[in-house]
Amino acid sequence: MATLEFWFEFASTYSYPAAARIGDLARREGISIVWKPFLLGPIFRRQGWNDSPFNIFPVQGRYMWRDLERICADLSIPLRRPSVFPRNSVLATRVACAFVSEPWLPEFVKQVYRANFADDLDISERKVIEACLGRIGVLGAEKIEQALAPANKDALRSQTERAMAIGIFGAPTCIVDREMFWGNDRLERAIAWCKSPGFGQSA
Amino acid sequence: MATLEFWFEFASTYSYPAAARIGDLARREGISIVWKPFLLGPIFRRQGWNDSPFNIFPVQGRYMWRDLERICADLSIPLRRPSVFPRNSVLATRVACAFVSEPWLPEFVKQVYRANFADDLDISERKVIEACLGRIGVLGAEKIEQALAPANKDALRSQTERAMAIGIFGAPTCIVDREMFWGNDRLERAIAWCKSPGFGQSA
Repeated sequence: MATLEFWFEFASTYSYPAAARIGDLARREGISIVWKPFLLGPIFRRQGWNDSPFNIFPVQGRYMWRDLERICADLSIPLRRPSVFPRNSVLATRVACAFVSEPWLPEFVKQVYRANFADDLDISERKVIEACLGRIGVLGAEKIEQALAPANKDALRSQTERAMAIGIFGAPTCIVDREMFWGNDRLERAIAWCKSPGFGQSA
Repeated sequence: MATLEFWFEFASTYSYPAAARIGDLARREGISIVWKPFLLGPIFRRQGWNDSPFNIFPVQGRYMWRDLERICADLSIPLRRPSVFPRNSVLATRVACAFVSEPWLPEFVKQVYRANFADDLDISERKVIEACLGRIGVLGAEKIEQALAPANKDALRSQTERAMAIGIFGAPTCIVDREMFWGNDRLERAIAWCKSPGFGQSA
């Protein structure tokens, strides 16, 4: 069975419910997830946007926040609209990128999303990321140092370049073989594609 | 139980599967649909776009066509990518607007979407719209004349203004009371909201 690449961005609103759901969804179907942290900023900039499209197009933004509110309520996950949006996600993403294969990575991902979208904390702050790591029993200071190594910065840059190269333009995005599924609302379809690639499945 | 306003645009890709599904979905749950044809062009223009965002942002466009292909295959409805996109939908929308309460309206809507997205016909042509009407037993020439009356042109203009005023920015959009649901992938949630307004339902 195919593995599922889960491309996510810590500042992305719809990645929050998706990250909360994907682990259980995949486990239930026996599918392995490859976690792919990346940055949307460089991708948006290449499109001529210097901000989140939800800020550039405020009518869409207004809708998105309401839609997200409904989605989180339906899933019973907490949501507090961040006082700054989008948060600078570079530090958190570097940590995720450096430790992507660690068994604690999925829990770290959830902690960062909670900090951003439920606790309204500034995830660009070292102490916030340290606390996210601490809560899952990982020594934050040390991991952050490692994440700031030049080789890891380069690794994240490459990963974001790779996202752009394969046509990723938003988050979350699931890739199964070369098939792309964009959005929290396409997780189920991506999982179904893993089990049975091709058309004509139920969506 | 609340009624569901279904705001649709004949040139909109995701409105095609939505229009194919909404009738049965609503009927099954005993919900009445109010059909709301409108034009996205003036709304996009006010956002500074002179074309479909799927053309302005080709990476998104490429994804959308593939996603639509999967959706239509999953629903077993035919799709042929129109050789011109977006088609000029003004004539078809004027007809829908003029006869929105006729019992044949839902079938006419489906015929126009088929013409655009399955048969690659130019729905701005009078003879194409006449044929759509003819196929459901309606005398096309006469209806089109009525649809071209100044009062009906004004009515469509007002409807599009109304869409903009309530924050509609894409199609399809469902409105239930004042709650907005954007996209083919939100139909089920909109239907659920009709039956039981408020948070904490399953999505």
